[in-house]
Amino acid sequence: MDKLRVGLCGLGTVGQGVLSLLQKNAEIISQRSGCVIEVVRVASRTEKPQVDLAAAIFSTRIDDLVEDDSVDVIVEAIGGSNAALSLFRSAISAKKHIITANKALIAEHGVELIPLAQDKTLFMGYEAAVAGGIPILKVLREGLAGNTVSKIAGIINGTSNFILTAMSQAGDDFKTALKEAQDLGYAEADPTFDIEGVDAAHKLTIMASLAFGVPMDFSSVYMEGISTISAEDIRYASDLGYRIKHLGICTLDDSGLSVRVHPALVPDGQMLANVEGVMNAVKIESDALGASMYMGPGAGGLPTASSIVGDLIDLARGNTRAVPLVNQIDRMDIANITSAYYLRIPAIDRPGVLAEVAQILSVHGISIEAVTQREHRQNDVPENDWVPVIIITDQVLEFTMNSALERIQELGDVVGDIARIRVESPGVL
Amino acid sequence: MDKLRVGLCGLGTVGQGVLSLLQKNAEIISQRSGCVIEVVRVASRTEKPQVDLAAAIFSTRIDDLVEDDSVDVIVEAIGGSNAALSLFRSAISAKKHIITANKALIAEHGVELIPLAQDKTLFMGYEAAVAGGIPILKVLREGLAGNTVSKIAGIINGTSNFILTAMSQAGDDFKTALKEAQDLGYAEADPTFDIEGVDAAHKLTIMASLAFGVPMDFSSVYMEGISTISAEDIRYASDLGYRIKHLGICTLDDSGLSVRVHPALVPDGQMLANVEGVMNAVKIESDALGASMYMGPGAGGLPTASSIVGDLIDLARGNTRAVPLVNQIDRMDIANITSAYYLRIPAIDRPGVLAEVAQILSVHGISIEAVTQREHRQNDVPENDWVPVIIITDQVLEFTMNSALERIQELGDVVGDIARIRVESPGVL
Repeated sequence: MDKLRVGLCGLGTVGQGVLSLLQKNAEIISQRSGCVIEVVRVASRTEKPQVDLAAAIFSTRIDDLVEDDSVDVIVEAIGGSNAALSLFRSAISAKKHIITANKALIAEHGVELIPLAQDKTLFMGYEAAVAGGIPILKVLREGLAGNTVSKIAGIINGTSNFILTAMSQAGDDFKTALKEAQDLGYAEADPTFDIEGVDAAHKLTIMASLAFGVPMDFSSVYMEGISTISAEDIRYASDLGYRIKHLGICTLDDSGLSVRVHPALVPDGQMLANVEGVMNAVKIESDALGASMYMGPGAGGLPTASSIVGDLIDLARGNTRAVPLVNQIDRMDIANITSAYYLRIPAIDRPGVLAEVAQILSVHGISIEAVTQREHRQNDVPENDWVPVIIITDQVLEFTMNSALERIQELGDVVGDIARIRVESPGVL
Repeated sequence: MDKLRVGLCGLGTVGQGVLSLLQKNAEIISQRSGCVIEVVRVASRTEKPQVDLAAAIFSTRIDDLVEDDSVDVIVEAIGGSNAALSLFRSAISAKKHIITANKALIAEHGVELIPLAQDKTLFMGYEAAVAGGIPILKVLREGLAGNTVSKIAGIINGTSNFILTAMSQAGDDFKTALKEAQDLGYAEADPTFDIEGVDAAHKLTIMASLAFGVPMDFSSVYMEGISTISAEDIRYASDLGYRIKHLGICTLDDSGLSVRVHPALVPDGQMLANVEGVMNAVKIESDALGASMYMGPGAGGLPTASSIVGDLIDLARGNTRAVPLVNQIDRMDIANITSAYYLRIPAIDRPGVLAEVAQILSVHGISIEAVTQREHRQNDVPENDWVPVIIITDQVLEFTMNSALERIQELGDVVGDIARIRVESPGVL
């Protein structure tokens, strides 16, 4: 291929990033790809903004990209679902390759779109959909292709990580930290997608699919967000040597495939515990390599453009073979996972409570790794007749933990809802 | 390509790792590559060891691999220089693709071998030569191909990092830590290549070449090892909030390309500071992505095999386009780099010494970031008439620092050799 002609759809931060990166680094991109990559047409539903379009033709009509015979590949940078989905369908019909950063679309409609593209031997690149500029899909698909992956654990939503970092460093409560994230532009006015784990679940769907060769299946991902995490849990966890992070986790073992996003206590010594602010990081455990980790900016116009241009270069190099997503692996119900747990039990401050709790855990075969009965601190709710009992358990089946928690919750001395957060197992990274 | 037929040369830990990985993960490898990858012939100069060679024919004569028409690609896992170099030359003549983990060969002879292979449109894969199983060359060559790289900084020699970690954690001196590394099999009986930076310089030569598109040029790499690092420097650095790591660093700026390996003080908060033991980690700074980092096992049979099999899969997928290594960029002399410095100045314990030192630094325009005059500790040399003056400077041209150090060394009150270690600049990762 001597020339790759790009139709760019969308001129927000990502679209502008793609334009400027292709211009700024044109020489090295052509050297590395062996091909001139040129944006020949740009479409945006809003009026043409003040950006240098070079020789590209501008339209406000998206279909112009699809109808332009000179366009080889469409870069979709409009986001959202409906318009993008319809663009994908018509682009595939028109035999255009597609590159996108649209995680929701790939996670929720990939099962339809990817085979459509493959049937016409078209390339569909979505490196930018997961972990921004970190080339994590390339690592899974190619670099580690000789490995059987057993686990992926990642911080893949920068907004949640920013909020948890702020809560941890400044002692802010959730609402204050969310407000700060919104003021800084890291969180949307309606932050639901980020803070309830939907965005992370989209990204995890895609990683799980490539790591295990299974069809995209967003609906089976277990989701918990960070809005229930309290400042006191972060403090107690810290006292015990943990940080609370929002993780996307997939594991594959004899019981099946577990794909889930939820908050977790991560031991201080683990690299993931030290990933702060809006950074993303993904840890992969695989049979040949062992534990490896990939870290970088998970969002932003230029980091996202970096991945889109990487996909364009793959297309130019002819590195377009898709991994078949055809394996059928049973999905585990969240009740069947095994995990250690952090419990915060609000209990009347009198002798015997801890014994009752320990007795129930013991009956369920749950060992206690650490326990502390906390004094109220200055900022805690000033009720003096109860204390939070903090327990870290050993590994146990979640189903068993649920049964034990029901019993503990019913104890007369337990005066409020028990907080329960999973604890990541120790690892070398 | 339906079938890729491998001739494996060498049955040490790496060769055995490749054999077992190709067998164990045959199904997913063929799924991801779209091709059956089969070892058809194995050569090893020693007698056939007790490993399952499946259907492969065994020879003790290496040339049998080259002369076997059924072999498409030779995996070189014998290491060393002479035999490997001769194998590469004859393999290229016989139109065989080559995959290797041999960093010395690629760094020192790549400038001859790579164009030879390209002239015959043969693939030469050497992902395994750098950072073991971390697919760092793929990241530089493809994932970040849209970026202009400005800096690479990595912990790329596990032996040195193990020794520095042991010195830091147990307070061992260099010799004790080296002995421990040797006892555990992390260091060779003759550890020169690892501890004097030669191995790291080989790997850095290769990374610099791919990142900047320049020919491999091992001879121009500036090299300092870790044998001069003392336990007290590690302690003083720690007190000031730094760890001492052995880094491979390339930087590209208007003054040219600097490629160097040396010990450096890394601020505690940086991810690189927390990479312990035999782990490898590489940080890349580039224009679009920003700072990103890649971490994992840097050595061992299976991690190395992971990268070799990754290269085999690239070959099977047809992802074989080499980045041209043709750019001419001036190499900076080490005297022209800019860095902050840690200085340990053994000086007579009397008033006025610090003033003299500060005066010389000031005359040279060097600002002081931190200074402490240390008491001797229990394990230090028990001479009571001198103290180590510890200084961290601001950024300055190394040439200027050298001039200042010459003057300071000549002061009558300075009673021994000044230790000087570069300090890594702060960064987001």
